[in-house]
Amino acid sequence: MSHIPKIAVIGAGNAAENILEIAHSVGSAIAEQSYHLVCGGKAGVMEAACRGFRFARNELNTNRVVAIGVLPEETADFVNEFVDIAIPTGMGVARNVLITRMADGIIAVGGGSGTLSEIALGWQLGKPIAALAHSGGWSEQLAGTSIDDSLRDPVYAAENAADAMRFIRGKLSAGLQ
Amino acid sequence: MSHIPKIAVIGAGNAAENILEIAHSVGSAIAEQSYHLVCGGKAGVMEAACRGFRFARNELNTNRVVAIGVLPEETADFVNEFVDIAIPTGMGVARNVLITRMADGIIAVGGGSGTLSEIALGWQLGKPIAALAHSGGWSEQLAGTSIDDSLRDPVYAAENAADAMRFIRGKLSAGLQ
Amino acid sequence: MSHIPKIAVIGAGNAAENILEIAHSVGSAIAEQSYHLVCGGKAGVMEAACRGFRFARNELNTNRVVAIGVLPEETADFVNEFVDIAIPTGMGVARNVLITRMADGIIAVGGGSGTLSEIALGWQLGKPIAALAHSGGWSEQLAGTSIDDSLRDPVYAAENAADAMRFIRGKLSAGLQ
Amino acid sequence: MSHIPKIAVIGAGNAAENILEIAHSVGSAIAEQSYHLVCGGKAGVMEAACRGFRFARNELNTNRVVAIGVLPEETADFVNEFVDIAIPTGMGVARNVLITRMADGIIAVGGGSGTLSEIALGWQLGKPIAALAHSGGWSEQLAGTSIDDSLRDPVYAAENAADAMRFIRGKLSAGLQ
Repeated sequence: MSHIPKIAVIGAGNAAENILEIAHSVGSAIAEQSYHLVCGGKAGVMEAACRGFRFARNELNTNRVVAIGVLPEETADFVNEFVDIAIPTGMGVARNVLITRMADGIIAVGGGSGTLSEIALGWQLGKPIAALAHSGGWSEQLAGTSIDDSLRDPVYAAENAADAMRFIRGKLSAGLQ
Repeated sequence: MSHIPKIAVIGAGNAAENILEIAHSVGSAIAEQSYHLVCGGKAGVMEAACRGFRFARNELNTNRVVAIGVLPEETADFVNEFVDIAIPTGMGVARNVLITRMADGIIAVGGGSGTLSEIALGWQLGKPIAALAHSGGWSEQLAGTSIDDSLRDPVYAAENAADAMRFIRGKLSAGLQ
Repeated sequence: MSHIPKIAVIGAGNAAENILEIAHSVGSAIAEQSYHLVCGGKAGVMEAACRGFRFARNELNTNRVVAIGVLPEETADFVNEFVDIAIPTGMGVARNVLITRMADGIIAVGGGSGTLSEIALGWQLGKPIAALAHSGGWSEQLAGTSIDDSLRDPVYAAENAADAMRFIRGKLSAGLQ
Repeated sequence: MSHIPKIAVIGAGNAAENILEIAHSVGSAIAEQSYHLVCGGKAGVMEAACRGFRFARNELNTNRVVAIGVLPEETADFVNEFVDIAIPTGMGVARNVLITRMADGIIAVGGGSGTLSEIALGWQLGKPIAALAHSGGWSEQLAGTSIDDSLRDPVYAAENAADAMRFIRGKLSAGLQ
């Protein structure tokens, strides 16, 4: 399975139903693209994305890709049930750094301070970032903007999951040329 | 020296002269208050804050407090010269987490994506945060706002270094009651 | 794939042919047991274990389990080709901590200072550890011994890969009771 | 205070009285040399070293050097009282990596698995290491030995605190040439 890209889905552990639906569609789009999913492994947007990922993967009848949950705790006791590979770090919010570091691309859905930290860290690390433009929170606020004046593309304002995936796929293809 | 608070000064490694002057005044205010200073140990806002800290400390003729530089690199080769205690982490941007974790309060001056990540992480960790309201960048944008809907005080919009210090000192006193 | 145990294989990035053969057999045994493999993702013992893992997995004709490589570098450029999921950490030797933290059990093969650090960290974290008793290095030295006086089983002295796997499987079963 | 070396004292959080006396003398020797002390910030060897450090520093009537405690917890609530600068990391045993990374030299006193991990990590990072040869535990076992076959000096077998300090000072002088 080498070289299969890993896409991080970042968002809050607690979100409204319409935000969770967007997260679910993002997870599905990642599985349909045959990419791995990375997230923080907890509830809310993370769980909805993993659930969408598993649902789409089951439809495709494959085990080729996996959902990875990078947890702040020392154990995997509180991982959501749709994570395939639980990574307990015991490093608290430093797990936010690990998520953005291991991701080849980042898709943001809604989100509060944790999501904001991951957008900022992902930006620092030069990762392609798409934010769902109608998902509220920091994703909606930062969609289409530049986080600072470094010479890179702004956060992509994605209309929906398919649009976000198209952007990420394009950036990854460009990177392979 | 136990129990002397540590105040993080966060800001960009590259900044305009007027921003550096603000950072210098923040560093001075921290030394005058007899608090330790914590920063990322590099140039720009970090160096200006450390220089201001050292200048004020020399005026006060004390070695009671120190400037700590928490570096992303494996060595201290690129620490600014006004840091007293260099902490090379070899952990890259994960050092942003360490800075916010060890700080008892955070003062933000200007800033790009790194500073934004530290404001977001500091918020997650519940640390008191003051942002210099006229220092541009993310500090100016977030001064007076809430990063998410958690029940805590917004980022304090500080008019100047003394005002920021007054806010931080007040929060620390309240925490000790 | 939730709840599939992850077994860390630890050992040097540079090892003699007979040590690599042992590592290969350990990787095979992990795949045959349908457990995930975790390692440092580099050459030597790590690569041999991943190669054995992939070979056995191909024989079994499954994608149900994966080989995870937790890298010290900021990118996956130097991962060995038999790793399925590369996790670049950008945290240097702190990746040793992540490997032992995420593992449900640890199998040590030969090894120098890095392996020793992982045996010691795994011991601190209370993870079951088997050391290949005839693989030289720290594994051979510590097989059958206690790292300190904490009340736990000594490092298991495994005669071969199958024996190591039997020990780990037994500890995991006991943990689930 | 730039460029003052930082010496890590590593050892168990629980130790016999004669081991604590050795740790105390090591802390004193570090202060008398006007170096900073770094440790894990907890009880046992760490506390005894910090106490010795503070006692000697008071005798010398200086605040020029400080005792730094790098804690596994998210807060400084459980730091020993002789630490000047508490660094809560919230990263658990990954703090062992930070201690060895920031140290310019390492002195080991007695010790169990945590100390062993720090000796191994310090060796990997190429730090000069002195082990008190009559302090029991891993320090006594590894004094005078090589941790692996890398081309570097063995762990120095120190007769006492003064001897350990002489070794470390010599290595630091050599490094500055």
